[in-house]
Amino acid sequence: MAEGETRSARKERDIVEAATVAFVSRGYDGTSMEEIATKAGVSKQTIYKHFTDKETLFGEVIRASAAQATSAFDTVAAMLTQAEFLTGGLQQVARLFMTTLMDEERLRLRRLIIANADRMPQLGRDWYEKGFERMLASMASCFQQLTDRNLLRTPDPYLAASHFFGMLLWIPMNEAMFTGNKTPRSKAELERHADATVEAFLVAYGPQAHGSR
Amino acid sequence: MAEGETRSARKERDIVEAATVAFVSRGYDGTSMEEIATKAGVSKQTIYKHFTDKETLFGEVIRASAAQATSAFDTVAAMLTQAEFLTGGLQQVARLFMTTLMDEERLRLRRLIIANADRMPQLGRDWYEKGFERMLASMASCFQQLTDRNLLRTPDPYLAASHFFGMLLWIPMNEAMFTGNKTPRSKAELERHADATVEAFLVAYGPQAHGSR
Repeated sequence: MAEGETRSARKERDIVEAATVAFVSRGYDGTSMEEIATKAGVSKQTIYKHFTDKETLFGEVIRASAAQATSAFDTVAAMLTQAEFLTGGLQQVARLFMTTLMDEERLRLRRLIIANADRMPQLGRDWYEKGFERMLASMASCFQQLTDRNLLRTPDPYLAASHFFGMLLWIPMNEAMFTGNKTPRSKAELERHADATVEAFLVAYGPQAHGSR
Repeated sequence: MAEGETRSARKERDIVEAATVAFVSRGYDGTSMEEIATKAGVSKQTIYKHFTDKETLFGEVIRASAAQATSAFDTVAAMLTQAEFLTGGLQQVARLFMTTLMDEERLRLRRLIIANADRMPQLGRDWYEKGFERMLASMASCFQQLTDRNLLRTPDPYLAASHFFGMLLWIPMNEAMFTGNKTPRSKAELERHADATVEAFLVAYGPQAHGSR
């Protein structure tokens, strides 16, 4: 019985992986359940046994991708909380975010969710709440702990987290969204941008940040 | 002759306005040239006299919207450069951006451009260069002048401008993109967010900003 469950879970993961590849390369409307079945090496009946319809499967693709990014990030945020050298730690986090979130497949999926936000609002909301907001909350809790240790000064950690991500990603993310990421920036360039952002962020929110707050 | 040109320009503007409404409400594929002609009160032949095909017209819609936003913004940036009270001036600019860029029609157009970025990369690039990057450049030049007057301290004004926009818009813009802006935030809420962002931005880039730079 347990083995059967395992096999079923593995099959489900295979289907979700095949569906991710299919959706990001052909779009939502351009992808058929038949094509996903072929790629996953299962029958169409098997897919429907696991997922009611294409929208449900697309929803699972979104949730899986959000979960993957946030779990990788939680680990890093936990490490940052323990960091001895804040600037170095923040730089590592910023660089990791940059390369994780600017991954080509993830960018295509992001574009696809935005494209279908009007038609399938619940899926967009899932991504926003389980991916975007969870990362913000996780970073905010990390900033709160660093503030408690006097390594940062964030009177509103959630706002500070949104400033961190916004400063870091406003240019590269928008460029990728609008231009289809045809000429992606080099890793070195993205990392330089990450370092410069950490520097400015620490002026705003480092322990010596001035201001009435 | 001059009168003829004026009438022709007016017709073109009517067509672009009708096309904007049609595209944002029905999407690119869901909109026909026939429908746009009816809305604009012209014949299909007239549309084709002005615009070769649907993609060209969509491109004009994008350029018109980008031009409208940037010209409104240039005026405000010029005023900010002259501002006596920097905090108040920046708050006004931030609030104006927030309400201009979070306009429902503009958000729908933005989503549509992202949705079609892979298929029509040149149009996305146009929006990015003529809208997004132009606003950044305009803000950067404004920050440079304020830095020259010792009202700001921005060693890299373009980076500072991207930080300003990113801090301001990361949350509301992403929320609107992913959730289809079904429950838009109130104007008061957006303005509070704008004010809090200006406060943090001035800690990072105000004249008293500390740091090795």
